[in-house]
Amino acid sequence: MSDETTRPEDQPAPRGPLKSHGRLSISASLKPRDLMAPQRVRGAWCAKIITLFPEAFPGTLGLSLTGKALDMGLWALETLDLRPFGEGKHRNVDDTPAGGGAGMVLRADVVAKALDQAAVGTPQNRSRWPVVFLSPRGRPFTQARAQAWAQADGLTLLCGRFEGVDQRVIDHYGIEEVSLGDFVMTGGEIAAQAMIDATVRLIPGVLGNHASTEEESFADGLLEHPQYTRPAVWEGREIPAILQSGNHGAIEKWRRAEAEKLTEARRPDLWAAHQARKPR
Amino acid sequence: MSDETTRPEDQPAPRGPLKSHGRLSISASLKPRDLMAPQRVRGAWCAKIITLFPEAFPGTLGLSLTGKALDMGLWALETLDLRPFGEGKHRNVDDTPAGGGAGMVLRADVVAKALDQAAVGTPQNRSRWPVVFLSPRGRPFTQARAQAWAQADGLTLLCGRFEGVDQRVIDHYGIEEVSLGDFVMTGGEIAAQAMIDATVRLIPGVLGNHASTEEESFADGLLEHPQYTRPAVWEGREIPAILQSGNHGAIEKWRRAEAEKLTEARRPDLWAAHQARKPR
Repeated sequence: MSDETTRPEDQPAPRGPLKSHGRLSISASLKPRDLMAPQRVRGAWCAKIITLFPEAFPGTLGLSLTGKALDMGLWALETLDLRPFGEGKHRNVDDTPAGGGAGMVLRADVVAKALDQAAVGTPQNRSRWPVVFLSPRGRPFTQARAQAWAQADGLTLLCGRFEGVDQRVIDHYGIEEVSLGDFVMTGGEIAAQAMIDATVRLIPGVLGNHASTEEESFADGLLEHPQYTRPAVWEGREIPAILQSGNHGAIEKWRRAEAEKLTEARRPDLWAAHQARKPR
Repeated sequence: MSDETTRPEDQPAPRGPLKSHGRLSISASLKPRDLMAPQRVRGAWCAKIITLFPEAFPGTLGLSLTGKALDMGLWALETLDLRPFGEGKHRNVDDTPAGGGAGMVLRADVVAKALDQAAVGTPQNRSRWPVVFLSPRGRPFTQARAQAWAQADGLTLLCGRFEGVDQRVIDHYGIEEVSLGDFVMTGGEIAAQAMIDATVRLIPGVLGNHASTEEESFADGLLEHPQYTRPAVWEGREIPAILQSGNHGAIEKWRRAEAEKLTEARRPDLWAAHQARKPR
């Protein structure tokens, strides 16, 4: 796993506050790792993560399909440790909230230095390279956003901890706040992994079977129909006869009806939006 | 990190299909690990994860506050590898969808065996021990659900991969489907980590400072107000004067107004719900 956290190997060499930044500065071990390192496909989609916990990455993203695609260089992951950008002997990155209150707030000046470093070599156009702060205050992450991000060259994700980040750095850099959902987490790292997973799987070549991204939930604004597989009878329960009929038109119709029924029952919000979109 | 994936040490000994299940079966190394293992607080909240990727855990949950709390035994994590429950020489866990279509579906009989194993020693009452399948077809995960889960004794999370799980096992076991959000991921493992993080931080003692769970986003149905910290001036931008006034009443009022303004602008859905709840 430690090999994977320093991937890709064409990450810019640490400089300035990055001097003490992790394994890449140990030049003696750089050569053998270079030989073993995966090729990064030129221009491959890249996620840059600013975090106090670079060791959280790639984490689950290094496994299964996303991990294989990372190894193949179909996408790339760069972590920027926020700590070396901190102030003073203890590299403090946060301070108490102005006006009082619990917790700590990430400092604007510290975060700005990390953002400047992350911006090196990336397009300034934010639709080509979104810069995002992960926060429950943000607009919700959706499949549409994953699709937009997958079309970009890459993105920079700032992971919060504590009580958030000084509002001035969000305003100054025009950072977009995006929320994983209506709940609060201890930090942005897991949220970053969730969003990267949802995005990376839409990059061509990452999933073995492309058809599966077209039939799935949200692709047409509906939840997906139920699925069945062998055995034909289990605990006295049979696979619905229509699925074994071989009549593809009837199967398609049944699946559509099931998807609509489920969406209406479980997600009245999606159902209303679906009804509003439907041509009459 | 490998120590943490086999935690807690009072996990029931593998048996039946679990014979080849990971490190606990290597009895020669069990003793030293027992001595080093963290104490699990009796009756501590426990997450049981059924997954094809047990190595994904604890992942980020093993770091920072959730990791410290795991070390202190304030909560516990058990992974059940789905693979050994699979059929035949290759331990197949999935098969093609009945009626055709892309991808693979987890088999009802295989998942049932893992669920039965996970159920050992857990209360049958689903409000004390929810059993959940992570799926974009489910009802959305929210802060209210995190609060309910934190009140339970623990929960079992089934992580999907591929095209989902045979509907019959969901029906037969009365499994609740819960969605992280309106997007599709390659699997349930990161979603499980997100939900566990949001839940565990609400367990008493996990966060150092309890006050911070009361002031945060969603605690009162609003997004959180902006935060500022030193330096007082950065890039020509000052901390709002009111936050430096020392007038706690005025600060509270300003923060409330900012939270309302942000919620109305960014989340009309939350704002409408908030307005409907407000006593007039």
